[in-house]
Amino acid sequence: MKVEVISIGDELLLGQTVNTNASWMGSALREIGADMEYGTVIRDEEVVMLDSIDRALNRADVVLITGGLGPTKDDITKRILCQYFDSELIENGDVLAHVRAFFEARGREMLDVNVMQAHVPDKATILHNEYGTAPGMWFDHNGRVLVSMPGVPYEMKYIMTEHVIPMLQERFELDKLHYRTLQTQGIGETYIAERIKDLENEIRAAGFALAYLPSPGMVRLRVSSRDTQENRAAIDAFMSRIEETMPKHAFGYEEDTLEAVVGTLLRERGETVTTIESCTGGAVAAKITSISGASDYFNGSFVTYSNEMKTKLVGVDAINLEDPNIGAVSQETVEQMAIGGREKMNATYGVALSGIAGPTGGSDSKPVGTVWIAVAGTNGVFSKKCLFESNRERNIRRSVLTALNLLRCEILGLNQK
Amino acid sequence: MKVEVISIGDELLLGQTVNTNASWMGSALREIGADMEYGTVIRDEEVVMLDSIDRALNRADVVLITGGLGPTKDDITKRILCQYFDSELIENGDVLAHVRAFFEARGREMLDVNVMQAHVPDKATILHNEYGTAPGMWFDHNGRVLVSMPGVPYEMKYIMTEHVIPMLQERFELDKLHYRTLQTQGIGETYIAERIKDLENEIRAAGFALAYLPSPGMVRLRVSSRDTQENRAAIDAFMSRIEETMPKHAFGYEEDTLEAVVGTLLRERGETVTTIESCTGGAVAAKITSISGASDYFNGSFVTYSNEMKTKLVGVDAINLEDPNIGAVSQETVEQMAIGGREKMNATYGVALSGIAGPTGGSDSKPVGTVWIAVAGTNGVFSKKCLFESNRERNIRRSVLTALNLLRCEILGLNQK
Repeated sequence: MKVEVISIGDELLLGQTVNTNASWMGSALREIGADMEYGTVIRDEEVVMLDSIDRALNRADVVLITGGLGPTKDDITKRILCQYFDSELIENGDVLAHVRAFFEARGREMLDVNVMQAHVPDKATILHNEYGTAPGMWFDHNGRVLVSMPGVPYEMKYIMTEHVIPMLQERFELDKLHYRTLQTQGIGETYIAERIKDLENEIRAAGFALAYLPSPGMVRLRVSSRDTQENRAAIDAFMSRIEETMPKHAFGYEEDTLEAVVGTLLRERGETVTTIESCTGGAVAAKITSISGASDYFNGSFVTYSNEMKTKLVGVDAINLEDPNIGAVSQETVEQMAIGGREKMNATYGVALSGIAGPTGGSDSKPVGTVWIAVAGTNGVFSKKCLFESNRERNIRRSVLTALNLLRCEILGLNQK
Repeated sequence: MKVEVISIGDELLLGQTVNTNASWMGSALREIGADMEYGTVIRDEEVVMLDSIDRALNRADVVLITGGLGPTKDDITKRILCQYFDSELIENGDVLAHVRAFFEARGREMLDVNVMQAHVPDKATILHNEYGTAPGMWFDHNGRVLVSMPGVPYEMKYIMTEHVIPMLQERFELDKLHYRTLQTQGIGETYIAERIKDLENEIRAAGFALAYLPSPGMVRLRVSSRDTQENRAAIDAFMSRIEETMPKHAFGYEEDTLEAVVGTLLRERGETVTTIESCTGGAVAAKITSISGASDYFNGSFVTYSNEMKTKLVGVDAINLEDPNIGAVSQETVEQMAIGGREKMNATYGVALSGIAGPTGGSDSKPVGTVWIAVAGTNGVFSKKCLFESNRERNIRRSVLTALNLLRCEILGLNQK
């Protein structure tokens, strides 16, 4: 089964909105063994829309459209679909009742434009949208399928999960592919390739595909094959061997995140963590608490941005901070931050960061991108100097990931090795 | 000039990477008056690549390709380009010298695969890539242009900014469009539409386009027209009138962010802010410090996740926290957090948040999505109860945005109105 995704919206082409919908849909389709073959982004312009829909229906079995549905006036999708499928808009009682209830539940006034959302093409199967007022619409056309959904991500996800995915599984025989993805932190693509050179040749010789998927601070390694029992076992074995070549870097599989992995380790051990952040300004704590249930192992933390607060809140020696040979971005300071914050918060681990996120504030001896990270625990304190890059956002992101991975290594006793 | 962007990579179709490149390129092209007409995402498969390149070169003046270039083995783009443009790979001395210097500067060993990156099609104009080892390649073909760039976002951005954009401006006469975007927070799309109904009709009657671009907690309003002096003035006037209808919500224009707007206000006034966060776990502080120079108005902050830390760090009454009629998520607690943290940090403003981010932890009286936010300042403390939704990530995001906007309104004296 071939799937084509069409994302409608000037805002996507103008770069005012990032197309996260298409990637989510690609991932959801992959899970049921359906291949997203093409993703297309187009304007909400009649000629382009008709042309794209027509081309897509000629090369794919299933066409999934998002966007161009909503209460405000910039939407023309429904009209175009009526034209293409020779259909007309009729008021749908179920949709109208839902829209009415939607507004009542929120104590909001229902407007005329919202009533219009209950007008739907008569040839479409209507897919209920629990989280919004624009329903999904499923068209059968010459043995192929076209589904139109709103572009609001969580509304589209609801309609996909509740309706489209099960309906596609019922309609098509899907030949599944199997994918495994190893997550690594703190080692570059080229260095992984060098380290697993022989293994990589073995993997390719076995007929499997291997891809490197880098993002700042992380590289994911994905191996894929047809989904058979033997292939699954063979890939699992290869993955374990890759993992063994880099225990300090390989932290999980598939959608694992460092914050979830670290959270699970802490909960299993009945341990807690606190953070004492300078250059990351709370971003490490925010990552840790992005996981539901983080209160099991996280009671609170400090952002000590100024020197004064490093001293006042977590007891860093003022004399070190003033010393031009030591200063705020130094091993001494970051270790004192980790130790002081850990004590103050009565936590098992204290993770501290102090660095120069940039783009200004660098010097010859401490260029932008210099970040000291320390983890204080029951075995004393481990610290590391990192040299990242010139971009503030990426420096913060890489600092957060590196800190979480050093915490993971500390919990697992890997840092001193 | 029509531009088509082709993004190559299984990882994009499989949903393992979000296509942020295409949206950045759309935005960069818009600034020079070039229209991105189509965005296509395809596999790195020979037949599909050749077909897509051919179709794109038949309907667009300029085709920009990202991805499929890099040191590891999953890249076939260069070979395909050679085939399509009847070119062959030759070693380029400049590129080789750059790759060598790149590795030397980082003290890393250069590998065989990296040498291969200096092999480029002989018919391409080579575009230097300062931040990476794969250069950009510009092909002239029957009066049209095709450019291939690596998929790593900051490498692509460098090549676009330094080479492609200026070269396109030189080559094509660009007819610019003018866009203005008003940023709003805390008011829904439908309510804005109702509030500016008459204005919207005037805007459309003037021949301008108006679009609503919603994202969780925010809606952007974009008005566009051909770029003439009169149109600019007319749009500015419309924008001011829209802004006047919602001063508590309209916080900026174009790429303004709440964290930058608030930072500028604080710096102008010589004031400071601290945060005392529970449900957002440091995300508000991280947003504030994502702005370079935040140390001018931010010295540090607290994450008080547990009740104990709310009492210990910022002096919330333990008796309130234990009272089932008050508790951690209450007006009393969040106001004490704001006042206590503000004093402890000696800041002009203290912004506190306490809520139930979910997905668990809700009750009948305090469902998931209940968030109390308080801002303590020189005029006492202002607090607000919000009812967001069931999704943890969106609750945190909307809490952060609402807190920053309440701080903005407090600085500007709008909260008590």
